[in-house]
Amino acid sequence: MDRVIRIGLLGCGTVGGGVIRILATEGEDIAARIGAPLVVTHVAVRDLSRDRGLPIDSSVFTDDAMQVVEADDVDIVIEVMGGRDPAGKLVRRALELGKPVVTANKELVAHEGPELYDAAAEAGVDFMYEAAVAGAIPIIKPLKESLAGDRIRRVVGILNGTTNYILTRMGEDGTDYAVALAEAQALGYAEADPTADVGGHDAAAKTAILASLAFDSRVRADDVYTEGIEGVTAVDMTIAKRLGYTIKLLGIASERDGRLGVRVHPTLLPSTHSLASVRESFNAIWVQADAAGELMFSGRGAGGMPTGSAVLGDAIDVARNLLQTVRGPVETSHREVPLQPIEDLHTQYYVRLDVVDEPGVLAQVATTFGWHGVSISQVLQEGQAESAQLVIVTHRAREADLRATVDELRTTDKVHEVAAILRVESEVFEVVDAAGSANDDGS
Amino acid sequence: MDRVIRIGLLGCGTVGGGVIRILATEGEDIAARIGAPLVVTHVAVRDLSRDRGLPIDSSVFTDDAMQVVEADDVDIVIEVMGGRDPAGKLVRRALELGKPVVTANKELVAHEGPELYDAAAEAGVDFMYEAAVAGAIPIIKPLKESLAGDRIRRVVGILNGTTNYILTRMGEDGTDYAVALAEAQALGYAEADPTADVGGHDAAAKTAILASLAFDSRVRADDVYTEGIEGVTAVDMTIAKRLGYTIKLLGIASERDGRLGVRVHPTLLPSTHSLASVRESFNAIWVQADAAGELMFSGRGAGGMPTGSAVLGDAIDVARNLLQTVRGPVETSHREVPLQPIEDLHTQYYVRLDVVDEPGVLAQVATTFGWHGVSISQVLQEGQAESAQLVIVTHRAREADLRATVDELRTTDKVHEVAAILRVESEVFEVVDAAGSANDDGS
Repeated sequence: MDRVIRIGLLGCGTVGGGVIRILATEGEDIAARIGAPLVVTHVAVRDLSRDRGLPIDSSVFTDDAMQVVEADDVDIVIEVMGGRDPAGKLVRRALELGKPVVTANKELVAHEGPELYDAAAEAGVDFMYEAAVAGAIPIIKPLKESLAGDRIRRVVGILNGTTNYILTRMGEDGTDYAVALAEAQALGYAEADPTADVGGHDAAAKTAILASLAFDSRVRADDVYTEGIEGVTAVDMTIAKRLGYTIKLLGIASERDGRLGVRVHPTLLPSTHSLASVRESFNAIWVQADAAGELMFSGRGAGGMPTGSAVLGDAIDVARNLLQTVRGPVETSHREVPLQPIEDLHTQYYVRLDVVDEPGVLAQVATTFGWHGVSISQVLQEGQAESAQLVIVTHRAREADLRATVDELRTTDKVHEVAAILRVESEVFEVVDAAGSANDDGS
Repeated sequence: MDRVIRIGLLGCGTVGGGVIRILATEGEDIAARIGAPLVVTHVAVRDLSRDRGLPIDSSVFTDDAMQVVEADDVDIVIEVMGGRDPAGKLVRRALELGKPVVTANKELVAHEGPELYDAAAEAGVDFMYEAAVAGAIPIIKPLKESLAGDRIRRVVGILNGTTNYILTRMGEDGTDYAVALAEAQALGYAEADPTADVGGHDAAAKTAILASLAFDSRVRADDVYTEGIEGVTAVDMTIAKRLGYTIKLLGIASERDGRLGVRVHPTLLPSTHSLASVRESFNAIWVQADAAGELMFSGRGAGGMPTGSAVLGDAIDVARNLLQTVRGPVETSHREVPLQPIEDLHTQYYVRLDVVDEPGVLAQVATTFGWHGVSISQVLQEGQAESAQLVIVTHRAREADLRATVDELRTTDKVHEVAAILRVESEVFEVVDAAGSANDDGS
């Protein structure tokens, strides 16, 4: 062991701290596995004065991140600062210098992934991002390597721990959205500004990354149809449960008829499905492939130590490759499957209406659905003095038709309010045959 | 793309057929991912006269397996014939010739893995076996690569689909063991001679492989303490359920106090644990690591297509490495953690006794437990005319003490029969701190 692999760490928040802590305890075993020790030689931080209490010599810290990237004694750049700027600039510079990069930055990868893959390919170095999706759960590598011989049909994930925590509280304890969110913030799961989480944007970034790998295409965060959980109420959670469903924020990527549906939204899924029992802040990804069948991966999707573990797994891969002067498998985008607009989605819908409580209203509502070609599967009606709650679950319908139905209902004077519109997925979980035709989900 | 990667396939049963079928439909995408096509040039079969109806030219078939290994136009040897002989001889010859090997042969890897790893290392070629454990579920690669930066504390798996199917039927429908086994055989899950499955030997082989990787040690099938499910009754399934447990055949590998406990046996685990809801012939592996926390992987653990998918995932890795003239990460055994004898196991026990139904029996039985230092956590008594069923769940105790207790109970005239002894695991699923000390499972 005469060689040392030297790491330049960009960022030293919870993830960067996790990386340093894990290396301090596991360094010897890691060295034995690689055949050379991993040593952090530089750490870029914003605030040099802060004492982080980390098991590393304080001389490694600097507030000049670019200097870390460019340092002669840095073989691998690990970027765990997050955000697109200046992270993007630093990562691009590293690749330009021929230095492999490991990142946990989903935002960066989801928005600029394709350019970064190209830059890494051009430089002939590794660019790895296992930690960017679902923390410690190995999912990038399984999609890119383990399932490389298979045809993936669908990837469905619970990819955001904050929203899963909130939905778990709402579903199990009947907690209101605002209260559950405050609870998540108090526990440190949710940021002071929770928009990225509750608005579905964090999950959308991760879904874009998974879709790109699963379908050999270039899907970016902006390509993902995204709805957050802000509109989900405890009332809908309760009604969904009664109907046999659990509401989860799902990232869904699936291919049908040569088009790729990629979307994130609160979803009613059958309570019997394994994803429905993924509780609290846990993440999970369900994959369906032609030969492998159904696979599920679950675990902690965030946190400094779990994410640090994933970062180090990648760093070890990169180190092994460096020692052999090769690079790992690259992302391919040879299929470039066109995207399906959300209006063309075919799925089931849950619509809750606040209606006038008088005879004939259901008939009128049903007529509107029928007129737009949306067939009704289930109706639930509950009176409350002068108004009533009417819950309608449709059969599989086209999103555009459902939207037209709802637009018309909004103008009907018997309908006070369209209180909730949610998608119901059960067909997405049914097994398709190798031709992708039978029992498909229409997304 | 001027290079072709040529495969010599040893065996053409369900898995070999799966490999050929998948390559026929996914070959183009696989070529795009690797940068070179994978082509099967030779297939060794036992019976040349059989028409297999596979999408491959019949000229590739031969009954001379050694000739396939030695053929000039074979770059990668895929061994899917199973069994130790002649598979072991063929694999060793391939490695000797400097040809990388992919195998789905758990028996071979669990018994001769260490020698084969060494032979592959010496030849500087890949030896891969993702398909040997849990079919299509990626678990070898996650343990060897994704978690290489972490410290794994415990690996617990449902690793045999046949026994999981039988136990599911017994637990959910009250079916008797013999009937459930016959059903599994009728469905093609169980072999005519089901010993390897129901005796726990198949699961033990897989547990040995997982333990070796998780703990950087060399654990062989024979090192695994193994009990099968032949003694599990529908009665115990029912009582377990009432106590909040589900009975599963688990492979358990865990490290404590510098010793490695590796065992396979029917286990009462809390019904709330994710492993308890893994039903039918599905497999699952639960991993606990210091930084990553809890992870779970589940899916189809057997079958030609799922196993074929895993084989091809490995073959693609090998092909990528061949094109760069390198080899993938190797198994390390630098820790060589000594094994813990089963007598030193500390866990909880479920003991069902058939006793004389008269006053004072419970007191006498309890005294025997107490005398051997085994403390009782729960007692359940049910009278049936002149005899009664006495079910005792102990607190955490040492296996040797429990055995001494049971031996003495067997000589007591008030005890007709010790009808069942099963291990109860709940602590194995509790999260340990980084020092591995708190809440540990004692295995």
